[in-house]
Amino acid sequence: MKAVQNYSTSIESVRNEFEDALEGLVVERMSSKNNRPAMRIARDVLMAGGKRYRPVLGLLAYEAMGGKDKSEVMNLALSAELIHTATLVHDDIYDQAKTRRGKPTIHTTHGLAHAIIVGDYLFALGYELGANYNPEVVDRVGASCAGVASGELLQFEHIGDLGTKPEDYYAIIDGKTAGPFATGCSCAAIVAGADQEEIDSMWHFGLELGRAFQLVDDLLDITGDESIGKPRGTDVHEGKMTLPIIHSLTMLHGLDREQIADVITNFSDDRWGELYELLERSDSLEYTRLLISNHVDRAKEQLHLFPNSGARDLMAEIVEMSKTRTR
Amino acid sequence: MKAVQNYSTSIESVRNEFEDALEGLVVERMSSKNNRPAMRIARDVLMAGGKRYRPVLGLLAYEAMGGKDKSEVMNLALSAELIHTATLVHDDIYDQAKTRRGKPTIHTTHGLAHAIIVGDYLFALGYELGANYNPEVVDRVGASCAGVASGELLQFEHIGDLGTKPEDYYAIIDGKTAGPFATGCSCAAIVAGADQEEIDSMWHFGLELGRAFQLVDDLLDITGDESIGKPRGTDVHEGKMTLPIIHSLTMLHGLDREQIADVITNFSDDRWGELYELLERSDSLEYTRLLISNHVDRAKEQLHLFPNSGARDLMAEIVEMSKTRTR
Repeated sequence: MKAVQNYSTSIESVRNEFEDALEGLVVERMSSKNNRPAMRIARDVLMAGGKRYRPVLGLLAYEAMGGKDKSEVMNLALSAELIHTATLVHDDIYDQAKTRRGKPTIHTTHGLAHAIIVGDYLFALGYELGANYNPEVVDRVGASCAGVASGELLQFEHIGDLGTKPEDYYAIIDGKTAGPFATGCSCAAIVAGADQEEIDSMWHFGLELGRAFQLVDDLLDITGDESIGKPRGTDVHEGKMTLPIIHSLTMLHGLDREQIADVITNFSDDRWGELYELLERSDSLEYTRLLISNHVDRAKEQLHLFPNSGARDLMAEIVEMSKTRTR
Repeated sequence: MKAVQNYSTSIESVRNEFEDALEGLVVERMSSKNNRPAMRIARDVLMAGGKRYRPVLGLLAYEAMGGKDKSEVMNLALSAELIHTATLVHDDIYDQAKTRRGKPTIHTTHGLAHAIIVGDYLFALGYELGANYNPEVVDRVGASCAGVASGELLQFEHIGDLGTKPEDYYAIIDGKTAGPFATGCSCAAIVAGADQEEIDSMWHFGLELGRAFQLVDDLLDITGDESIGKPRGTDVHEGKMTLPIIHSLTMLHGLDREQIADVITNFSDDRWGELYELLERSDSLEYTRLLISNHVDRAKEQLHLFPNSGARDLMAEIVEMSKTRTR
């Protein structure tokens, strides 16, 4: 019999618990003839760290809903991280990213075919681990994956589209980012045996946190990541319509509007100063911070509906961290 | 109540039944906000026909094992076809294929990113439909997908490798082709409530048929597809070690061995005559036909273990067709 009363005392301890399970899975699959050729390549990006927000939130949501034996929900947490990593491996191909989690991306070290196949393998493994839950969980995970694909496709449709509306933006990020957060939290609640109201609350908690998370990402693309000491600018260079840009395009008029349209359409690194000035004029970074604050507040409102617990406090901690993270 | 006594009378009728279910799925998903953007692109390749061997075999295997209500196994058949189509969409990217099932490939019409994402979507949908079966089915489907990834990776390792052995070849094709056939048939038997012996027989039936299927594919790559009136030669151009090539490299000696090694390593279309002559000298096409015959016979032996039924006869028909197919 394994001990089941293992309450989480810190985010770090939950993350370590998850890392142990992930390492166990990698070791297990490395000794399977069917899995080894793919896992041999996949394990680097899998074990290279990453913040593990999705699985950690899933484990905490389970505990906050009264779940007593985290091993019940661990495969779901693993599944979330595997599917997330699969999308990263595939995104990095068409975003032509050189590094991921501090390591060279698979397509740069092994080529296009290997990166596609290894991503597919991670998907397969993720689905396998998520499949043995009840049909409602499976349906939610399926809908979430379809939503990620659709969100990414919508995002492409709006590349360089200066008429992108906030509704379009939310359709994109709800699909590709907020949906998976909402799915992870609500499914963990289902596994813990929560009632429908609690499951819905967990869904909204995850959705609002995921939105905040994506908006912070948008902001960091412009204001910068402290580890590299300059704006990341990936989105700006790709013509992705992030919220600050959409807001600025909406708020500015006349010559300013013409100028921001030109900066976005013909962006190069020597135009950062121009971009900042225009975003400043439309107060778009401040507006983005306000939206983040709103989503964070709504996430916290959901948390207040749950019984007091250490896990709930740690979830609140993650919400706070999401607001101030710098990478 | 739906009618359940709907015995299959021809391969064509089973295929039509499957096509109806697939079309129903496409229509359903087209009306889902989460699915529409991806399904809009995916539906062309999904509905473009294809031979549907995998799902048709699954439906027949279910019936041959005494299954009375094909709707029980239809999601599994859909899952097999969706996952198969997902791998085709992804394979076509790195094989740089221009057409698939008579239509331009997604990466040629929509670009790399869309093809990757749409393939991922098809995987997600396939897993969703396959997930609500019992854990043994899920584990087998998971292992099969891992096997496909590993088989494809192994195949890359052996590109242009003149020392590739028959064992390597079988590890590759059991992963990428025969495994999914075996999985589809054995899982259908599980759904029908077959006993362990029957499940194992269905597994071996699918495995042997899948091997025959792949060997015929190897042969067609060299001898040609009647619809195009010339060798396909895709494998030869890519340096893939197909069975006829492996056999020839093993059987020839001295100058002949040097020549075949050179032909394989530096292949171009003006060397077909040379290649045929060498394959003739080593009797490699004949040997491949013999292997096909052996695998077909072994598949049929398994069929003989099952009770007499219309479905079993149709499975035998597919086995015969696999031997003589010309595309």
